[in-house]
Amino acid sequence: MENKGKRKIEVCFSPALYSFYRSDSAIVVVSDILRATTAICAAFANGVKNLIPVAGLDEAREWKRKGYLVAAERDGIVLDFADFGNSPFNFHPEQVMGKTIVYSTTNGTQAIRMASEAKHVAVGAFINLTALAEWIDGEDSDVLVLCAGWKNRFNLEDSIFAGALADSLIGSGHFFTDCDSAVASRELWMMAKSDLTGFMDKAAHRHRLRKLGLDDVMEYCHTPDSTRVIPLLKDHLLVEHTDY
Amino acid sequence: MENKGKRKIEVCFSPALYSFYRSDSAIVVVSDILRATTAICAAFANGVKNLIPVAGLDEAREWKRKGYLVAAERDGIVLDFADFGNSPFNFHPEQVMGKTIVYSTTNGTQAIRMASEAKHVAVGAFINLTALAEWIDGEDSDVLVLCAGWKNRFNLEDSIFAGALADSLIGSGHFFTDCDSAVASRELWMMAKSDLTGFMDKAAHRHRLRKLGLDDVMEYCHTPDSTRVIPLLKDHLLVEHTDY
Repeated sequence: MENKGKRKIEVCFSPALYSFYRSDSAIVVVSDILRATTAICAAFANGVKNLIPVAGLDEAREWKRKGYLVAAERDGIVLDFADFGNSPFNFHPEQVMGKTIVYSTTNGTQAIRMASEAKHVAVGAFINLTALAEWIDGEDSDVLVLCAGWKNRFNLEDSIFAGALADSLIGSGHFFTDCDSAVASRELWMMAKSDLTGFMDKAAHRHRLRKLGLDDVMEYCHTPDSTRVIPLLKDHLLVEHTDY
Repeated sequence: MENKGKRKIEVCFSPALYSFYRSDSAIVVVSDILRATTAICAAFANGVKNLIPVAGLDEAREWKRKGYLVAAERDGIVLDFADFGNSPFNFHPEQVMGKTIVYSTTNGTQAIRMASEAKHVAVGAFINLTALAEWIDGEDSDVLVLCAGWKNRFNLEDSIFAGALADSLIGSGHFFTDCDSAVASRELWMMAKSDLTGFMDKAAHRHRLRKLGLDDVMEYCHTPDSTRVIPLLKDHLLVEHTDY
């Protein structure tokens, strides 16, 4: 059988479907391209030491009172008590180098917390795609990409990232899939990859961000491999793979 | 604005996501291509008068005791008390003409019942695609395609049907979409349509059916427009559009 000995990659299109895909022996890669997982990778690339993903705003406010730097947004809007919003351009080395940051977003951080029982939880984005694929390839686990989506609805950018990762892993010869969402994601990636930013013009969230004047991140968020950082969840804290 | 005056089409990839897409003023089209919605259309095409979709097996058994013809399967297997399984080839005119049939399946009938508060609930399949699109075009409602999926997971065949319907309606000039699942479905349809049965070789359910020796239906289920019937839900009963 051609898939014998290969590891499996699956894709879950929404946190609301997680229970139907969950596999705690797998590596879960959380994808929230616009903008949480891209911003988290960018934060580590700029020198953040640890990142505390929190789901609720009360919890984020509590950390702020304790003196932490807090990044928090809802529906693309920076919250008044927060030091940063959700843009990957927020984290300047002089402000964040060596620090712990608390992070709360509309969709992404909830997805990270939801997956916390998995063998590993990794933060995935186009900007760390190749480093992530290489690290996964060297582990001995199946993979599930958990797309954060938009308020539990499917979105294009998270799914196409999932397809890019699936394509890379299947291309390595060490992975297979029998999961229809992985097949669909990979097909969409193969169609989109020659002009990813152009293809993303079709995405609903692009238009949401444009209305808010926040779509300056589109090109950055859809350009692969600007960093080699791999943020991993360790005891409810995101740390760099090298510190794991 | 280019979408002004146009009606909206959205696609929901799983019954478990229905609450995030639900719109009771819309026409909901339920898609369970392999095999429930194809089989329901085939049943009407062969002369069935009414079809009672039931979710649970106890309910299906109860109808059988009352003397009804019952079609019931789980995971592709005909249940012992049932007269028919879920194949669209089961319903011969001499057996079913003018009759009421009770129908219960793994995914499809639950999805039909779930949508029962919508303005209209229609049964969609490739075999009635054009008739369905023409009827919808003449109504004055938005459209939501509810993919039955496989045990709440995304599947290719239901989603690609959704894309075919979206493509037809958007192509009419009367519809638009800002829904990422509709965009993705339409892209997949455009990629698959020149060799739909071949593309479906990638689908997980194809392989499930092949193992059970049930994949004789693949070509029939993926060939558009063998019938003009449009089954609609009316007071918990499926009837033909002409009788609605």
